[in-house]
Amino acid sequence: MLIVKKFGGTSVGNKERIFNVARRCIEDYKKGHDVVVVLSAMGKSTDELIYKAKDINPNPSKREMDMLLTTGEQVSVSLMALAMGALGVPCISLNAFQVAMHTTHRYGNARLKRIDNDRIRNELEQRKIVIVTGFQGVDKYDNLTTLGRGGSDTTAVALAAALHADACEIYTDVDGVYTADPRLVKGARKLDVITYDEMLELSTLGAGVLHNRSVELAKKYGVQLVVRSSLNENEGTIIKEDTGMEKMLVSGVAVDKNATRIAVIGLKDEPGVAFRLFDALAKYNINVDMILQSVGRDGTKDISFTVEEDVADDAAAVLEKHFPKSQYKEIKMKREVAKLSIVGAGMQTNPGVAASMFEALYNVGVNISMISTSEIRVTVLIDEKYVDVAMNAVHDKFSLAD
Amino acid sequence: MLIVKKFGGTSVGNKERIFNVARRCIEDYKKGHDVVVVLSAMGKSTDELIYKAKDINPNPSKREMDMLLTTGEQVSVSLMALAMGALGVPCISLNAFQVAMHTTHRYGNARLKRIDNDRIRNELEQRKIVIVTGFQGVDKYDNLTTLGRGGSDTTAVALAAALHADACEIYTDVDGVYTADPRLVKGARKLDVITYDEMLELSTLGAGVLHNRSVELAKKYGVQLVVRSSLNENEGTIIKEDTGMEKMLVSGVAVDKNATRIAVIGLKDEPGVAFRLFDALAKYNINVDMILQSVGRDGTKDISFTVEEDVADDAAAVLEKHFPKSQYKEIKMKREVAKLSIVGAGMQTNPGVAASMFEALYNVGVNISMISTSEIRVTVLIDEKYVDVAMNAVHDKFSLAD
Repeated sequence: MLIVKKFGGTSVGNKERIFNVARRCIEDYKKGHDVVVVLSAMGKSTDELIYKAKDINPNPSKREMDMLLTTGEQVSVSLMALAMGALGVPCISLNAFQVAMHTTHRYGNARLKRIDNDRIRNELEQRKIVIVTGFQGVDKYDNLTTLGRGGSDTTAVALAAALHADACEIYTDVDGVYTADPRLVKGARKLDVITYDEMLELSTLGAGVLHNRSVELAKKYGVQLVVRSSLNENEGTIIKEDTGMEKMLVSGVAVDKNATRIAVIGLKDEPGVAFRLFDALAKYNINVDMILQSVGRDGTKDISFTVEEDVADDAAAVLEKHFPKSQYKEIKMKREVAKLSIVGAGMQTNPGVAASMFEALYNVGVNISMISTSEIRVTVLIDEKYVDVAMNAVHDKFSLAD
Repeated sequence: MLIVKKFGGTSVGNKERIFNVARRCIEDYKKGHDVVVVLSAMGKSTDELIYKAKDINPNPSKREMDMLLTTGEQVSVSLMALAMGALGVPCISLNAFQVAMHTTHRYGNARLKRIDNDRIRNELEQRKIVIVTGFQGVDKYDNLTTLGRGGSDTTAVALAAALHADACEIYTDVDGVYTADPRLVKGARKLDVITYDEMLELSTLGAGVLHNRSVELAKKYGVQLVVRSSLNENEGTIIKEDTGMEKMLVSGVAVDKNATRIAVIGLKDEPGVAFRLFDALAKYNINVDMILQSVGRDGTKDISFTVEEDVADDAAAVLEKHFPKSQYKEIKMKREVAKLSIVGAGMQTNPGVAASMFEALYNVGVNISMISTSEIRVTVLIDEKYVDVAMNAVHDKFSLAD
């Protein structure tokens, strides 16, 4: 078997953890498997580099930031190689240009274009464990790039696809994917299996564990993923194609508190008003999530939408700049809101799931202010203070603890 | 003009120093020059990386050490680019593979083979300051290498040669090359000019400032060097070809306390004894410096030689292993010795220089235990406790303070 194993920054945060990861990889190696390890930068080292950079230049060039940050993973992989060497196992560390990981040249948020696998294959044939820097790439002019959020997961999945790996294991600090955040819902249960689409919805909802970009890539190339803990030997959660067999009605409940609701009240009810509003926001790169339009009185309407908390002020400023005061009555902002979602591939064929969710919330007195849905997801916007009671109610309603 | 400027680790040790270097480079840039900057790793960062590595693996793979250490210069060049960016000047940082700096694959001590200059030329044509990682290279299989001691100086000189630079400035923490160590000799004077050969002798004698490897390379390619301080605007010392004009009888006095004298007393006076002795040491990679053979009594002889202090015990052990006790009387070791040297291109055509040196030492009562000479150098081994008085006496004798 060829196994790609990815470990995050906390998993290689100090000497003991580095040896812990080394031993896990060597276990598989000694069973006769080919092992490719993808690593992030150690612990807080990326943050420290960013701090140094911003101290020198608060508005740093993205190219030079990537040049700086890519040293972080290179330190991780070389130290890991030294640890495996100390344990007597042949291994080699490779950075993005040695692999080579070709990307677009969009610094700080590059996309992988192509991975050469000759070098890795060659090293594996010599029975070495190959340790690869996650998160980074090289553009066609040999500039170093980074892949942005979830970058190391993406590197691992892309390598697994390029090498036709038999397994791609994403090691993290949790045991796998849960039906809900165990810190918030007592009966939260680890899922054994989840489909790509369900995982995508959960990732997009900020349920952590995996970035949706890596899940998308895994889905595209049919790379079966396992999410498991680097701290114990538990089995983890398998993420794979929807086989139509084990479709759960609802496989998980997720909550995202990083939302602010903005309501533009009393807009003139003319054609093109909504277009102009969202076009203005888009031009300033402000991502809008849920949208609700309601008809008001006297030929006016209200438009409400949610954005991430840290761009809420920018969004309001954009609106005030592009809409004359005369065209609306007021802008209201509410920060103490949260998005609560249920995700399940089984929803597609089972009507009434949304209704059950609303019923559960009604029973515990939680008011719903906005609703948005996809084929396998229902999201509602609620008051942040009700998150706990709402999550538990919904979790119980769908018997997710069973 | 195209100017290559090299700054060592202390010159970029913190934010203030980074900006100081940035400003010096920008000064030349604003005069219309093309500027290429070569940097070492910041301050103690290389030592810190080595410490981390040895903590994980006391006997680390040299390949992985190079992979680890090359991150140091990459951090320097990217932070420098951010500083120049903050000062509003277009610039770009390049590491060894981006340049590309082709080397042999001898990790930890690689030799430069070839430098591509397309990328640098291209960036200079766009009127950018180009900031290059010193000390590092890439072998033909894309592995990262380091150049060993004096590596960043070597990078600077090699770049100056490859780019046909008009000047190559080596910035350090001293004002230039002195007639003697100013901490030891009060009248020590900074030299305005020195020849490659004189500098080579001084470097080999451990007079610091420049590693002889970079001087050799400069001599080979006719790259005129300037050694000057990164802390002030003083003119520094020019190192260039011997033009036959300004040959000084003696241009400098150097001292090297890192020496131990080993004497093998009462060796059988047979053919091949000296060969066997030094061959044994060579096989264990023990470098021998000065050698003295004297005829003893009763068909025996004594062989004395000096080695660097930290290999003295190894040298004695090698001798004891390879020479049966019956073949010599005893091995004596003396650590409190120092090599005192005078260097001057003018010696070649002026007999009597060595005699003047010996006279000066005789006048202050310093005994000479070994002598070695080259065409432009005389070195004597003396007791370490006489170093100060001996240096000053010789310095005075040749009127170097004038």
